[in-house]
Amino acid sequence: MKRKGLLLVVSGPSGVGKGTICKALMKLREDIKLSISMTTRAPRPGEEEGINYFFTNRDAFIRLIQQGELLEYAKVYDNYYGTPKAFVMEQLDQGVDVLLEIDIQGALKVKEQYPEGVFVFILPPTMEELKNRIVGRGTESAEAIDKRFTAAYNEIDLMENYNYFIFNDRVDLATARLISIIEAERLRIRPQSVKELIREIKEESKC
Amino acid sequence: MKRKGLLLVVSGPSGVGKGTICKALMKLREDIKLSISMTTRAPRPGEEEGINYFFTNRDAFIRLIQQGELLEYAKVYDNYYGTPKAFVMEQLDQGVDVLLEIDIQGALKVKEQYPEGVFVFILPPTMEELKNRIVGRGTESAEAIDKRFTAAYNEIDLMENYNYFIFNDRVDLATARLISIIEAERLRIRPQSVKELIREIKEESKC
Repeated sequence: MKRKGLLLVVSGPSGVGKGTICKALMKLREDIKLSISMTTRAPRPGEEEGINYFFTNRDAFIRLIQQGELLEYAKVYDNYYGTPKAFVMEQLDQGVDVLLEIDIQGALKVKEQYPEGVFVFILPPTMEELKNRIVGRGTESAEAIDKRFTAAYNEIDLMENYNYFIFNDRVDLATARLISIIEAERLRIRPQSVKELIREIKEESKC
Repeated sequence: MKRKGLLLVVSGPSGVGKGTICKALMKLREDIKLSISMTTRAPRPGEEEGINYFFTNRDAFIRLIQQGELLEYAKVYDNYYGTPKAFVMEQLDQGVDVLLEIDIQGALKVKEQYPEGVFVFILPPTMEELKNRIVGRGTESAEAIDKRFTAAYNEIDLMENYNYFIFNDRVDLATARLISIIEAERLRIRPQSVKELIREIKEESKC
């Protein structure tokens, strides 16, 4: 039975540990492909094309924006970052599940273009722990920390746009929860594909 | 955080092995309660009140029907069988997940009364295997077997009313899939409760 892949969008406030969970998932599961971002910034030492990022120049990036070829994009300082649509869609069409780790603003843009994705919101164990994690970076002023924390606190409201929530109390537990979500979503009956599913069950195995 | 329990309705054609999966689940998970049916038939040797069934008489059963106190019921030959609503609803209100193993007609009636339940359709590995299982009971005429198989074959169409499907190729795998569904549904963000969830996350842990 040919199943379309799932687009798994893992997102949450900054400092919540979504990157750690996604790395843990990718180590455990070879049947899920990580979406690779495109950027106009220069590669840093050790970064490889097609592994860490797709590197491109500003003109090419802007052309992709204009052609609607990005699932989402953002400009950070002088550089663009975005998610090429073609790569993701090809994988999904081949039945491969794609993982996209992204901030909340990016996730909401992806949802506009691909509402049938599975949107997972990562939460800190407590808001206090989130503050500790933000402080723990140790590189920012008290004012910058407060600002970052207030932003994260307000962003929690946006989880109403998501399908699932996961408390990141422990990375292994959070990763196991994400795996349960993936396993369940693979078994979900979707109105747009159920007729074909039924036909295939009956045809493949009719006696 | 006080979560409302899930009503897990596990259902599928006769002969598909839904009872075996539910028994395996109940052995593995003490955090899920099995819904107990009520019947007007007499207890068989070894059957215990409140364990195998709630036993009652015909007048009391009919009163429950009239008062809307059954999630579903059916008359089989001269006896009534049904699912008492109060028991299930009390568990759900206490945050306990309740498992209801039931035939397809019963599941569809439950859905009318409780659409927010999680409806899981158990499928045979193949239709041929389903026929083998029906034949394997060895107590029926060829005609009865054909009739039963045709009914099961046609019932597959009704899976479009369900949320999830599980192929019962191996009991341990099918049970693991059911557990993934339960774990994921516990993490699902529901429109009717998301505002309260957000409020609780922020209040419990505000710093």
